[in-house]
Amino acid sequence: MSTEGLRLYSYWRSSAAYRVRIALNLKRLPYEIVPVHLTADGGEQHFLDYVRLNPQAVVPTLLDGGRVIRQSMAIIEYLDESYEGELKLLPPTARDRARVRGLAQIVACDIHPLGNLRVLQYLERELDTPAEERERWSRHWIREGFDAFEELLQENPSTGQFCEGDEPSLADICLVPQVYNAKRWGVDLSDYPAIVRINDECLKLAAFDQARPENQPDAPG
Amino acid sequence: MSTEGLRLYSYWRSSAAYRVRIALNLKRLPYEIVPVHLTADGGEQHFLDYVRLNPQAVVPTLLDGGRVIRQSMAIIEYLDESYEGELKLLPPTARDRARVRGLAQIVACDIHPLGNLRVLQYLERELDTPAEERERWSRHWIREGFDAFEELLQENPSTGQFCEGDEPSLADICLVPQVYNAKRWGVDLSDYPAIVRINDECLKLAAFDQARPENQPDAPG
Repeated sequence: MSTEGLRLYSYWRSSAAYRVRIALNLKRLPYEIVPVHLTADGGEQHFLDYVRLNPQAVVPTLLDGGRVIRQSMAIIEYLDESYEGELKLLPPTARDRARVRGLAQIVACDIHPLGNLRVLQYLERELDTPAEERERWSRHWIREGFDAFEELLQENPSTGQFCEGDEPSLADICLVPQVYNAKRWGVDLSDYPAIVRINDECLKLAAFDQARPENQPDAPG
Repeated sequence: MSTEGLRLYSYWRSSAAYRVRIALNLKRLPYEIVPVHLTADGGEQHFLDYVRLNPQAVVPTLLDGGRVIRQSMAIIEYLDESYEGELKLLPPTARDRARVRGLAQIVACDIHPLGNLRVLQYLERELDTPAEERERWSRHWIREGFDAFEELLQENPSTGQFCEGDEPSLADICLVPQVYNAKRWGVDLSDYPAIVRINDECLKLAAFDQARPENQPDAPG
């Protein structure tokens, strides 16, 4: 295994991996993708070599040389602090950073954890929750979080072309993959005009577009 | 309403509020607690005045003068960046910050969101999940996260008296409230000797002890 450069353990449809791909692209950092095929309990995330890197058996994991970084938001802040790049993913003042992190954490702490694969599998297997109830569950938590996210975008004059001002930040990086998931679960986005506008704005940028699930080497043909 | 000083909207048993109380104590910052009594859908978190501050209707919210900061991890990083204090809650290098944030996010993104009040209420009301299954659910996600957390503590020589070295950090601040929850749900902690050791070490400090749910003004007598 090379100890040079950046290597991202990723799964095309994981929205946590999608976040890190966007961040790497925005920072214009070259990286190698190592696909980890997430499936039910037999997925590659449980292979011994991967679990050694990531004892949670989740993606993403970033290797920076010999250094292992885990958890998508921690990885993104690490990249932002370690590599200058053209763009900072967190704003320059503590106050604005707090807003950006707060928005990002609505997605990363209050929406995404409830809709990911292992949770839906538990509902199905352990609680015999039928498919339509699992879908309602997923939509419910997305809506709860998006209701607040939308309000915080609309009420605050700091909202610009992107969530915070006119440059993409950690907040947009978390939002766009969650909108992808919302569409996948059939959430009606017409209640969220600011979210939709910013999502569209982001996806015009190559950094976001190239990070999309469909554009990954491990996406189904 | 005063626009001076720090004001924390808190609920005695909320582990996200518990995190911020620890951080404020570690930084030796004076603050006023405004209790928000979380209950079922009629709880004070849904009162109009509070929802104006926090559209998610969750605790904690921090007011710093006229500034509103939301989401516990964002609040803690904001406090650390804005107030020097005697102690930094995040380490000085990007590499060590990534480890601390990664550990904290195991709790904040992968354990805690699955066991909080609104999720358990949804299981009960919308999916008719019986009490013993809800408890099994809670224990399951704590164990999944603690398995990884324990391994990352044991494998890494950076682990010291606390999660990262010999000073408490954001990782300990997230861990201790989660251990409190684990005990509440009856998780057998004998598989987690490093977690138990560090939790005990933390609770020897007044900053952690005074932040405990039982020591809050709104705790039942």
